[in-house]
Amino acid sequence: MRYKKIINDPVYGFISIPEGLIFDLIEHPFFQRLRYIKQVGLSHYVYPGALHTRFHHAIGAMHLALRACSILRNKGIEISDEETEALAAAMLLHDIGHGPFSHALEFKLVSISHEEISLMIMHHLNEEFNGALDSCIAMYRGEYHRKFFRQLIRSQLDLDRLDYLARDSFFTGVTEGQVSYDRILHMLQVHNDALVIEEKGIYSIEKFLIARRLMYWQVYLHKTVLSAEQMLIKLVDRIKFLLKSGEALPLRPFLHAFLSSETTKTDFLNNPNKLFDYCHLDDQDIHVMLKDLCGHSDKVLSFISQSLKYRKLFKLEFLHGENQELLKKYREVAQAEWNMTEEELSFLIFSGKESNIEYNSNTDEIFILSKKGEVEPISALLDFKLKNKALIKNYICYPKNVVTLLYQ
Amino acid sequence: MRYKKIINDPVYGFISIPEGLIFDLIEHPFFQRLRYIKQVGLSHYVYPGALHTRFHHAIGAMHLALRACSILRNKGIEISDEETEALAAAMLLHDIGHGPFSHALEFKLVSISHEEISLMIMHHLNEEFNGALDSCIAMYRGEYHRKFFRQLIRSQLDLDRLDYLARDSFFTGVTEGQVSYDRILHMLQVHNDALVIEEKGIYSIEKFLIARRLMYWQVYLHKTVLSAEQMLIKLVDRIKFLLKSGEALPLRPFLHAFLSSETTKTDFLNNPNKLFDYCHLDDQDIHVMLKDLCGHSDKVLSFISQSLKYRKLFKLEFLHGENQELLKKYREVAQAEWNMTEEELSFLIFSGKESNIEYNSNTDEIFILSKKGEVEPISALLDFKLKNKALIKNYICYPKNVVTLLYQ
Amino acid sequence: MRYKKIINDPVYGFISIPEGLIFDLIEHPFFQRLRYIKQVGLSHYVYPGALHTRFHHAIGAMHLALRACSILRNKGIEISDEETEALAAAMLLHDIGHGPFSHALEFKLVSISHEEISLMIMHHLNEEFNGALDSCIAMYRGEYHRKFFRQLIRSQLDLDRLDYLARDSFFTGVTEGQVSYDRILHMLQVHNDALVIEEKGIYSIEKFLIARRLMYWQVYLHKTVLSAEQMLIKLVDRIKFLLKSGEALPLRPFLHAFLSSETTKTDFLNNPNKLFDYCHLDDQDIHVMLKDLCGHSDKVLSFISQSLKYRKLFKLEFLHGENQELLKKYREVAQAEWNMTEEELSFLIFSGKESNIEYNSNTDEIFILSKKGEVEPISALLDFKLKNKALIKNYICYPKNVVTLLYQ
Amino acid sequence: MRYKKIINDPVYGFISIPEGLIFDLIEHPFFQRLRYIKQVGLSHYVYPGALHTRFHHAIGAMHLALRACSILRNKGIEISDEETEALAAAMLLHDIGHGPFSHALEFKLVSISHEEISLMIMHHLNEEFNGALDSCIAMYRGEYHRKFFRQLIRSQLDLDRLDYLARDSFFTGVTEGQVSYDRILHMLQVHNDALVIEEKGIYSIEKFLIARRLMYWQVYLHKTVLSAEQMLIKLVDRIKFLLKSGEALPLRPFLHAFLSSETTKTDFLNNPNKLFDYCHLDDQDIHVMLKDLCGHSDKVLSFISQSLKYRKLFKLEFLHGENQELLKKYREVAQAEWNMTEEELSFLIFSGKESNIEYNSNTDEIFILSKKGEVEPISALLDFKLKNKALIKNYICYPKNVVTLLYQ
Repeated sequence: MRYKKIINDPVYGFISIPEGLIFDLIEHPFFQRLRYIKQVGLSHYVYPGALHTRFHHAIGAMHLALRACSILRNKGIEISDEETEALAAAMLLHDIGHGPFSHALEFKLVSISHEEISLMIMHHLNEEFNGALDSCIAMYRGEYHRKFFRQLIRSQLDLDRLDYLARDSFFTGVTEGQVSYDRILHMLQVHNDALVIEEKGIYSIEKFLIARRLMYWQVYLHKTVLSAEQMLIKLVDRIKFLLKSGEALPLRPFLHAFLSSETTKTDFLNNPNKLFDYCHLDDQDIHVMLKDLCGHSDKVLSFISQSLKYRKLFKLEFLHGENQELLKKYREVAQAEWNMTEEELSFLIFSGKESNIEYNSNTDEIFILSKKGEVEPISALLDFKLKNKALIKNYICYPKNVVTLLYQ
Repeated sequence: MRYKKIINDPVYGFISIPEGLIFDLIEHPFFQRLRYIKQVGLSHYVYPGALHTRFHHAIGAMHLALRACSILRNKGIEISDEETEALAAAMLLHDIGHGPFSHALEFKLVSISHEEISLMIMHHLNEEFNGALDSCIAMYRGEYHRKFFRQLIRSQLDLDRLDYLARDSFFTGVTEGQVSYDRILHMLQVHNDALVIEEKGIYSIEKFLIARRLMYWQVYLHKTVLSAEQMLIKLVDRIKFLLKSGEALPLRPFLHAFLSSETTKTDFLNNPNKLFDYCHLDDQDIHVMLKDLCGHSDKVLSFISQSLKYRKLFKLEFLHGENQELLKKYREVAQAEWNMTEEELSFLIFSGKESNIEYNSNTDEIFILSKKGEVEPISALLDFKLKNKALIKNYICYPKNVVTLLYQ
Repeated sequence: MRYKKIINDPVYGFISIPEGLIFDLIEHPFFQRLRYIKQVGLSHYVYPGALHTRFHHAIGAMHLALRACSILRNKGIEISDEETEALAAAMLLHDIGHGPFSHALEFKLVSISHEEISLMIMHHLNEEFNGALDSCIAMYRGEYHRKFFRQLIRSQLDLDRLDYLARDSFFTGVTEGQVSYDRILHMLQVHNDALVIEEKGIYSIEKFLIARRLMYWQVYLHKTVLSAEQMLIKLVDRIKFLLKSGEALPLRPFLHAFLSSETTKTDFLNNPNKLFDYCHLDDQDIHVMLKDLCGHSDKVLSFISQSLKYRKLFKLEFLHGENQELLKKYREVAQAEWNMTEEELSFLIFSGKESNIEYNSNTDEIFILSKKGEVEPISALLDFKLKNKALIKNYICYPKNVVTLLYQ
Repeated sequence: MRYKKIINDPVYGFISIPEGLIFDLIEHPFFQRLRYIKQVGLSHYVYPGALHTRFHHAIGAMHLALRACSILRNKGIEISDEETEALAAAMLLHDIGHGPFSHALEFKLVSISHEEISLMIMHHLNEEFNGALDSCIAMYRGEYHRKFFRQLIRSQLDLDRLDYLARDSFFTGVTEGQVSYDRILHMLQVHNDALVIEEKGIYSIEKFLIARRLMYWQVYLHKTVLSAEQMLIKLVDRIKFLLKSGEALPLRPFLHAFLSSETTKTDFLNNPNKLFDYCHLDDQDIHVMLKDLCGHSDKVLSFISQSLKYRKLFKLEFLHGENQELLKKYREVAQAEWNMTEEELSFLIFSGKESNIEYNSNTDEIFILSKKGEVEPISALLDFKLKNKALIKNYICYPKNVVTLLYQ
């Protein structure tokens, strides 16, 4: 494999871009679009450095794919250049279907998951590149005959997670989330066509699992980040509500199209242009939408937009158990003071829940290969117990001055 | 000084925000606006990590101000809490007047410098904060009675440069640009009310000067970055040209206002709303402008917009001496092929020059304090010669396929 | 507090040394001796970078003491300059009683713990410095009236641990062991005269506890490190055995003195010179001892010495339960082949056990201060269960070729 | 190439050790000896972290050799596995002939250079490994038919320098000395069988040259480090002087042998045991020598030994021009006070000079390959002038209290 270009990456130092398919995919407008979609959405409100994009993450994951193949080959696993390229392409494209603000607005703009859109884009590119993505797509779908490739792409210890933990901890400055990606890559092995970890890597995996948990509670589900995301979601809900009732709103054209009517998988399949329209969307459309709605006459729109733009974020409290009473009380107080309808208040004072599964030992396990050649699931080997069940946290979210109103 | 908040900063680890004035300034909408202005404009086309903002830089520079005061106090220099706060505020606000894409579009949107706008904003905030910024403004203007404060704010070794070199090298991954900011801060001393560097810090200063030069050629004036910036400038020039000739263009309102007529310092002084209008602008207005102009019928607008959006950047070549002949030849070839007027081509095939003064020993020197208490300018002490004169590089810039046309 | 000197520390960047007591203690021969005692003994056999010394660790811990006091003062806790100095001195001297190879040879050279020797040295220095260490000693002994100082010196989250985890992970390159020392310091608070951690620091503490566990199994109790340490211990045991039986051995004088007779606390108290004699010992005496015994006629001495010098380390296997049978079998095989007595073989083929208490919730807990001002032990708050009991691992250790003998 | 072992290296993360020759060389006692020879001698007196060894450096340089070959192969340069191994072996062994304290004591223990001893050791190992080092030795001697290998081993931009700058700056904490080794490796190219640097790497090379200069003045020739080294040299001179006059001294046997008579290249050639004897020496012999001489009756021996052991280093002053008068005056004063002979004082109060050639454009240049395929020496391309001539600094060195004596 020859390299065409080197990119400075503050996380890994340098990333070499192979010539041919990989280079051409990166140059493609569909991929360039990822430059304008932040990796961790609104987290920069809490961690000002966290402005890195899905473009950067995808290239980083591609880099880890090349490293993993090189390390496995040094251990005697046969992996052809074509397979290496296919895996690298899969990592490049694994998240290409994400829209503005990724997870936060998933299912809000269209009614299908980002994975399905990713796959549609891959098929589109495969046609454009005359079938060069056949193996890549097979690997991504888990249909390639060597199944460990699928595990590198998506499993509980995949290259996606390795890159995003390394990258997100780097740009947020949350050093607790650092993972020893290089050590973990060196511990990879293939056994009976399945991905396993060499025994001496067990502490690195333990650390990886802990780092991931910490990043969840300290970054991805940080109270303030969650509050900002929920505010954005409520804003979008309100917009869709108003559009449905026939109101005209100052939205950019493609955004307007997707918010004013539901788009299903069938719509994408029936109308190839839908995919192009979708690919016109990025974070910037939402950013300027916020700016444009700051002065809108609808109280909910202007209140949330201003709050987000100037970072006057709502208070979010985790509760023990659901608490509909508190919600009711807050709404009553606010209604009395703010002259808003109950319906309007439902966008400003609301409850919800978040959950995180630390490790799922039911579906796919991380397996450890002992020096004696035995394979055991890590859940059986760790000194501490992995949480198999989703940890669910209920919360209530409301503008900070509601409490002031309550106790004044 | 008590601290109200801690911010994770991947560059310095943690930044403590003092309560009171500093915290309140950061919360202010004028300051929050800096979240949407990237520190190094279009450099992310070459260095994908370089998406950090002026918001982050300003807080970083504020942090260095607090550190510098603490270190100097430990050395016996008397600095009051009020002075510390004033210096910290000055670093927070020193660049607040920057508009979208900072330097690239300076003087393109309004006819005054970003420093003058910064000062206008400071005065505005000073009124709002009832004179709390009096000392800060005096320091910034160089009118405070202890002149070393001015040197910390703006000189050839100021806190601004320390932070931007540290931060830009961090986010670009250009490790050559790293500066030993902590060591340099420890070497600061005040002698006869002037800022000096202790003798043993001389190599750190040498390294700082070299790092700055490297960052200039490797990042700020990198050929590809320069090309992108010049493309943006030509696009804006074209927009202003078309607006002047009465064409209607899909621009966001405040941007339209500033691009369709000249705004001078007098305009700002006569109409206080101008400053608010200006503060509505940020990088996002330019980003969506690019997206909206991609399909425009004016060939120049659509060609440059598409090229920028999908990163098909023009080729930029540094030349020995000016070379108007090459320019002429390229334009002739393109004109024949592309069916464009000479006037249109002047926006696509153009020449220019960039310059950088490495160190200016005429205006203000960096002074070294020897162990014997003598003060000497660093230019007299270094083993190598500092370039006093601006290094000027001429260049020519043009779409890549022009060369293909020429040799086909 | 004024600073006299700055030391480059690759872990923290720079360490400022306060003038006066702290500077003078560092200059003292007793403290300079720590330059020649490695922090993690024989770990450099596995991690070649781990050659850092107790000198470096002590200065690092002193630095954290200064930082902790400064941070607590910024939060409004009153701590005088004298108290800061006393705490800094305590961190400087907390391990000064360590002898060659620290823990590995503890109780092998003298019959009292390193803590007791540290205290004897502190008292000696206190006399020399005319009582300047009174508060320092009180803090170290837990007799100072403000008890949080003792917790900073010795508890389950003390400055000692913060520094050694940061430093050992840095020099070994085991990045999994990194701790967010700076974040943890920022989370410190004093509540009812007890050290507590602010609520938002809870994940950093969790990470700290995990990092410590990982460092135990990956560095301090790494199989190969353990093997090397046990080999050294057996060598010393053999030396003492031979000396007792009247054999003359080529040992350096002070080492000879301590190995040929038992030294108790009473001996130290009765004979002040004992302390000086002890302080003449450092790692180098052991290193050259190894070199000198390589050619010795006693088979055990020469075999272990050569094995250590050229890093032909014994195999160490962790067993499930004790396994005296395996031990017996190995010894029988070796005895047949090597022509050694059973007594000699007991130094070459042996079993043992190692244990590590992850967290002791019985003795002293780490307490978390909630935003509402309530204090709870961390063991009640963590998502995962801390191991309260010592984890005990049994092992058997023997020269690698024993197995070859067995199966040839 | 398959890998047998992974070593944690805090500088590069992980180093993979290829099985076969490379692994076996590392296991060899001659190579294991390097564990006990510090890379930068007495620098740890100034930089307490700088205890890293030639063992670590040699393995690091070997790692860079593997990287360089891999990168060049990715660029289409054909390099066989045998050539890769030979280069890796050459880097492993390039400094194997160093004795205790490397440069400081070079030519003091034996009368030939460390390069010549390295070569003798390589030949010895080549016999032991049945000619496996033939190509390695040819490369090292510059006799291999592809000359760029020699340049990778020894030139003004060789893998030795890349590793030692990276490593020394890491362990000293002098971040100014960091080099972008990874970027430089990526910029390597072979042109007409000569090593060249791609044009876009020019700033990295500039930075590399500056970093090297800084490390010279800030670490290798740091005044305090120089003083310690000169003290050690004078101590050894004194020992040799006393041994010559028949005095018995408490030295370890091999050290005694080399210090009591001159050993030339002929001696090594005539007596193969000399090489083994030499390989018994390491830093530890010198360390314990210092300890043993602290109480010696010869005033010079005890004075210097104590001063080194407890870090009471002499003052070293750089002078403009030689200054024999100052030397004379100091000696006179000391003689009067200390009751020493002039001959004794010549070991305690002395002058000397140090020099450093920044870049030698006469012998071998670093060449830059332009995008157009032209090759030019870097000295013709840099913006600043490289110093071709040695920079010579004269100094005088003396115990600190001499000055006190002078002015009391």
